[in-house]
Amino acid sequence: MTSVPDERPAPTRDGTFVQSLDRGLAVIRAFDAEHPRLQLSEVARATGLTRAAARRFLLTLVQLGYVRAEGREFSLRPRVLELGYSYLSGLTLPEVAQPHLEALVQRVEESSSLSVLDGDDVVYVARVHTKRIMTVMITVGTRFPAYATSMGRVLLAGLPDDELDAYLDRARLEPLTGHTVTDPGVLRKVLDEVRERGFAMVDQELEEGLRSAAAPVRDRSGAVVAAVNLSVSASRTSPAQLEHEYVPPLLETAAQIGHDLGRSTRS
Amino acid sequence: MTSVPDERPAPTRDGTFVQSLDRGLAVIRAFDAEHPRLQLSEVARATGLTRAAARRFLLTLVQLGYVRAEGREFSLRPRVLELGYSYLSGLTLPEVAQPHLEALVQRVEESSSLSVLDGDDVVYVARVHTKRIMTVMITVGTRFPAYATSMGRVLLAGLPDDELDAYLDRARLEPLTGHTVTDPGVLRKVLDEVRERGFAMVDQELEEGLRSAAAPVRDRSGAVVAAVNLSVSASRTSPAQLEHEYVPPLLETAAQIGHDLGRSTRS
Repeated sequence: MTSVPDERPAPTRDGTFVQSLDRGLAVIRAFDAEHPRLQLSEVARATGLTRAAARRFLLTLVQLGYVRAEGREFSLRPRVLELGYSYLSGLTLPEVAQPHLEALVQRVEESSSLSVLDGDDVVYVARVHTKRIMTVMITVGTRFPAYATSMGRVLLAGLPDDELDAYLDRARLEPLTGHTVTDPGVLRKVLDEVRERGFAMVDQELEEGLRSAAAPVRDRSGAVVAAVNLSVSASRTSPAQLEHEYVPPLLETAAQIGHDLGRSTRS
Repeated sequence: MTSVPDERPAPTRDGTFVQSLDRGLAVIRAFDAEHPRLQLSEVARATGLTRAAARRFLLTLVQLGYVRAEGREFSLRPRVLELGYSYLSGLTLPEVAQPHLEALVQRVEESSSLSVLDGDDVVYVARVHTKRIMTVMITVGTRFPAYATSMGRVLLAGLPDDELDAYLDRARLEPLTGHTVTDPGVLRKVLDEVRERGFAMVDQELEEGLRSAAAPVRDRSGAVVAAVNLSVSASRTSPAQLEHEYVPPLLETAAQIGHDLGRSTRS
């Protein structure tokens, strides 16, 4: 239940903007894993709406079948999935990637994800977990800042120079751990290295105890359209192991996904 | 791109209803696997909105980061996933079920899904595919009418009698294939049998060539909260095989999910 006003882009109110839609979507986003059930006052607080406004949006969502009201508590109904899956079902990428991710996870016994760049964030569009108990629980739709993740670095390195420069100018590189690269000049050098080597490795820059490597998925034109990663526990896997044992199958998997993507009819 | 007005429930316009939210959500739902990119006029047609109104909603969604505009074409952006995943991330069920579904699929080499009842439909909340090439491609969020699916029958059989009676009174049982049970009296008998046997089997009633079996997932109180299924190709697996080879591991899996669900803190 992040405070929505901070998170969303400030829209230019030029007369075309439908504020009710913005607010209604904020009400849906007020529910999350930590807050699957909310009372009216909590929705109002999370969205910055008045209680009266929050009530109108909630009751509308109840009428439309997106929200369930039980006593004083509201929760989302499965119909909400139709919204997110309107996006996923239009993508060939996760469908094409899934069997390759599964094969990779079975081979290396670590979790693997596929993500795309959306603004300055990476967004997970597919994920396969290992059966280990200590698995990082990240689901499709999760966003992370691109600069601190291996997939983000692969995706940033794949940008044309002018877009990468613009990113480095605007991005706020916050230290997420003591290891995070936060200097734009240093990040630029790291990204140059990613371009040269063809993969990225991140050592506990997003989260203490977490290492990951990522490789680019390229379309037929050679453009980077997605990134695939393997994430490992720092206590179990050294950076050298990650590079020598895990990066080669990862590069192979990324190439296979790119190959299959080129053969698929939709794209 | 189903025509939205036909699909959504008719809301009672009692002054609290926010029509702009309804319309904006309809614009998001206009995009799907067959229509990942739409022009303004196509969105207007799919939603029943005027071009001017469709344009306002699309531009609002562009400003909010949910829709991308490229030339004359619009498409959804990954931020839309946040909406669907607001629901999924609040559920313990898919997270608890996933490893059990994976183990089941590995054991029997057929695809398995988990679904819940939403109104008169089953909605998939988790799915694990086999690595076979001929796999039914169904994703999370998919809805099917409960009466024609094995998971639906398990979920209907789990309803209290008064709710089941109300369902049988209102449901329109359309023949989806030549095998679909469409008589409410016959369906009632079939559901009684499901209650007695503890599982459901459906033979090509949803789709020609498709057989499936489903078992109920029960919470600590014994209430049926979800159904797990295995779906097989009719040309590869006989009803007898489905019952004798596949139903026992399926029942085991459903029991394990129910057991783990009882131990989880959220529910």
